[in-house]
Formats: sequence, structure tokens, C-alpha cells
Amino acid sequence: MLKVVVIGSGNVAQQLVQVFEDTAQVELVQLYARNPEKVAHLVPANRITSSIINLAEADIYIIAVADDAIAEVSSQLSFTGRLVVHTSGSAAIKQIDNRNRRGVFYPLQTFSKSKKIDFSTIPFCLETEREEDYAILRQLADSISKNVYRINTTQRQSLHVAAVFVSNFSNHMYAIGNKICDEHNIPFDILKPLITETADKIKILSPLQAQTGPAKRNDRSTIEKHLDFLEDENHKKIYAILTKSIQEANV
Amino acid sequence: MLKVVVIGSGNVAQQLVQVFEDTAQVELVQLYARNPEKVAHLVPANRITSSIINLAEADIYIIAVADDAIAEVSSQLSFTGRLVVHTSGSAAIKQIDNRNRRGVFYPLQTFSKSKKIDFSTIPFCLETEREEDYAILRQLADSISKNVYRINTTQRQSLHVAAVFVSNFSNHMYAIGNKICDEHNIPFDILKPLITETADKIKILSPLQAQTGPAKRNDRSTIEKHLDFLEDENHKKIYAILTKSIQEANV
Repeated sequence: MLKVVVIGSGNVAQQLVQVFEDTAQVELVQLYARNPEKVAHLVPANRITSSIINLAEADIYIIAVADDAIAEVSSQLSFTGRLVVHTSGSAAIKQIDNRNRRGVFYPLQTFSKSKKIDFSTIPFCLETEREEDYAILRQLADSISKNVYRINTTQRQSLHVAAVFVSNFSNHMYAIGNKICDEHNIPFDILKPLITETADKIKILSPLQAQTGPAKRNDRSTIEKHLDFLEDENHKKIYAILTKSIQEANV
Repeated sequence: MLKVVVIGSGNVAQQLVQVFEDTAQVELVQLYARNPEKVAHLVPANRITSSIINLAEADIYIIAVADDAIAEVSSQLSFTGRLVVHTSGSAAIKQIDNRNRRGVFYPLQTFSKSKKIDFSTIPFCLETEREEDYAILRQLADSISKNVYRINTTQRQSLHVAAVFVSNFSNHMYAIGNKICDEHNIPFDILKPLITETADKIKILSPLQAQTGPAKRNDRSTIEKHLDFLEDENHKKIYAILTKSIQEANV
């Protein structure tokens, strides 16, 4: 049984706490939160602490806080020589204070508090400085997910950027589509099957193979019609730039 | 039983032919293709014609050709007073020659020849000039889909633009993510659960509620890091513009 302490109270910390509580091979021995009320609904009060210098003994300490707080939080830990990991896609492993054994435990997913996550399909990207620590972290990741990868810092940072494109920016495309529907009294629901199909397609085709639309087939009259149709200058600009990017296929 | 003639041999025509052949309430009496070999695998040769002036009698003629060919093809039809519809998201209903009764039968989906479509979930957007024709077209759409909408030309054109954002542009975001992975020897598969989750999320949250990421939380240090990390000038430009667009929430 792996003993784990989670440090943090944001989306990632809360989702991890929930999955650890549901996982037989993991014992969540303690949850640190600056503000314990924020996590009181997740675990009994006797396992919550707001004192960073009195953490319980564990096999793995998971720092799930904002990127710019990792260095400070890890430097406040009162012990040395233990395995301490962060959950960030973009922070370097070296952000963790070097008095402890360092690692990264990055779940590549988009977390919203209001939607519960199925962890078994979430890719976990692991990095450690020592081989022995990789085995420990791997055991933890394998207990909650089927998709575990060994990924170094540069690869992880590139994944983090790629994730912004495929997730944050795609979602913004949905938001623009929603706005256009609202402006013309059309239910956004009409577009949802198309969104699902577009995401499903790339399970069997590469995105380049799956590309369709006026930009791809260089249908200038439709492109002109769309640009005329769009009233919002920001939407016009985005339409023009992405159309050009698809056409140049310089992705 | 509705008698249908399909005119065209592209993606949409081929997908429609296949679903009509599988639908008991529809009789595909004829398929017109300039080049019959292109569709020889779909229906028996005796129901394929390459002569536009000798089409069989039917309740509905579906012109599924490129937008800029609709006017010409419809003007070549040798009959008058019959129900003739096109399948375009952006062409006006008036593109069809007015010697016949005009309509639109627009399936809002992304069609690739290599992936078979489940029509039952595809939204169909219908428009006709006469009320009696709407009933006929509705009967056809209801026989293959559960999502049928009455949509006028302006609404349809706005849906078509919105579809470019939510589908073509989202897919391009996937393509950029794929390219970044390739550049760093990371399997694109790692990103696929994230893509699925991002598309699934908006079934229960609005895109604005579902938005996450550095732009949304105004995490400037991560944004700067990402812009530094991206080498491709085109990717940098897209990243900057979409980040700004999310931050201004002026979607």
C-alpha cells in the first residue's frame, strides 16, 4: 500500500484526493490545505492539516499547487530525502527543493470542478531523477490509470503547449460557434453532434487526413462569403488566420 | 415510400446514397454521376445515369454537388414543377432554378469518404418555399435522423460559419498539437483522451463555463513560457491571438 500526502486544494488536488480515496492500493494519509474548509467535504478532518511543517510520513508527497508556488511550498517542507513530486505540465522538475528526491506526476487532462473525471483513461506523464523513484511513482500511476508514460521535462513542456492548442483553443472555437448561434437564435445543440464527430474522427484518421472545409479545399467563394458574414472583427481575424494556416498546411 | 433521385458523386452524395439504400421508407430510384465509375460500388448499374436530361420520376431530387455548380445543374433539369433541393450549408435556396419547387436539405456534419457516418444523430436543416414541400422533405429527413430542424437561409449560413469554427478550426488545433508532438518524439495518442474530454465537456457545460488553461486564468508566466517555447512563427501568432481572444472573452 502506497502512502500519499496531497498538498493543495485546487482542481487537480481535489480530483486526485477523490481518486486516491477510491483506490485500494493507495492510502491518502494526509491532505494539506492552507484553508481546510475548502476541502472539508473530501476527507475527514483528522486527515486535513493546515500546517506545512508537520506533515505525516508518506512514500510520496504530491504538490498540486499553482506553478509559481511549487518552489516556495517545497522549500517549506521540514523533512529531507523523501520523494516529492509536482503535478505541473510546464514547471521544471528542478522547481522542487533539492533537499528531497524530486519527481513529476503530471495528469494530462482538463479539470473542471463541476465535472467528475474518469482517471483510468487519463495519461500520466512521469519524470524522476532516480530510477528507484520512477518505480514507486509508476506504481502509484498504474493504480489509477491505464495510460502511463515516461516523459522528460522538455517533452512535458511541449505536451503542455500542445494541450493548450487541442483543448483550450478548441474549446474557444466552440465558444465562438456558440456565440454565432446565439446571435442568430439557433440552439447551440445543433452543433454538438458535429463537435463529437470531429473529436472522434482523429481516433482513426490523423488530423491532417481528417481536415475538411472551405480552407482545405481552397473554396474561395465560401471563404469570402463567411468573412463578409462575420460581423465581429475578432472573429473575422481568427477566421482569416486559421484559414491561411490550414491552406499553407504549415502546421 | 418516398422516391428519391440523388445528383452528385462527392462525399455528401455517396453518404446519402448509402443511408437511403439502408432505409426502408426511401426508394433511391436513380443516382446521377457525371462519371458513373466513381459510384459503381454503391448501387447497381441500372440505377446509375450520366445523362442529366433523362432523370427518372421521383418525389425529391437532391442536388449534392459543389456550391458553385448548383445553379447550373438545376438549370439543366428537363422537368418542371418538381421538388428539387440542394444540400449546401452556404448556398441560398434561390440558387436552384425556379422552374421547379425549391428546397434545402442540409446535413450538418463533417463527411470523410473513409469514415462511415451514423446518420441518426446528424442534424438536418430543412428549408422550403412551400408548406406542402416542407412536409415531404421532413418525412425524408425523419426517416434517417432524429435531429431535424427548420432553418431559414440566414440561420443556415450562420450555422455554416459556426461549423467552420467548431469543426474545421478545432481539427486544425489538433493538427498543430500533432505537429508539436512529432517535433518532440511524443506519440500524439497521449493527447487523444484530452481531446475527447474537451469535446464531451460541452455536453454538460457551456463552452464559456468549460474554458480552462493559462489564457483563462491569466497565467502570464505560463503564456510567456509557451510563446518562448514555440519555434514556428505561425504557431506563435495563433497562440497569441487566441490567448488574447479568450482573455477578452469577447467571443
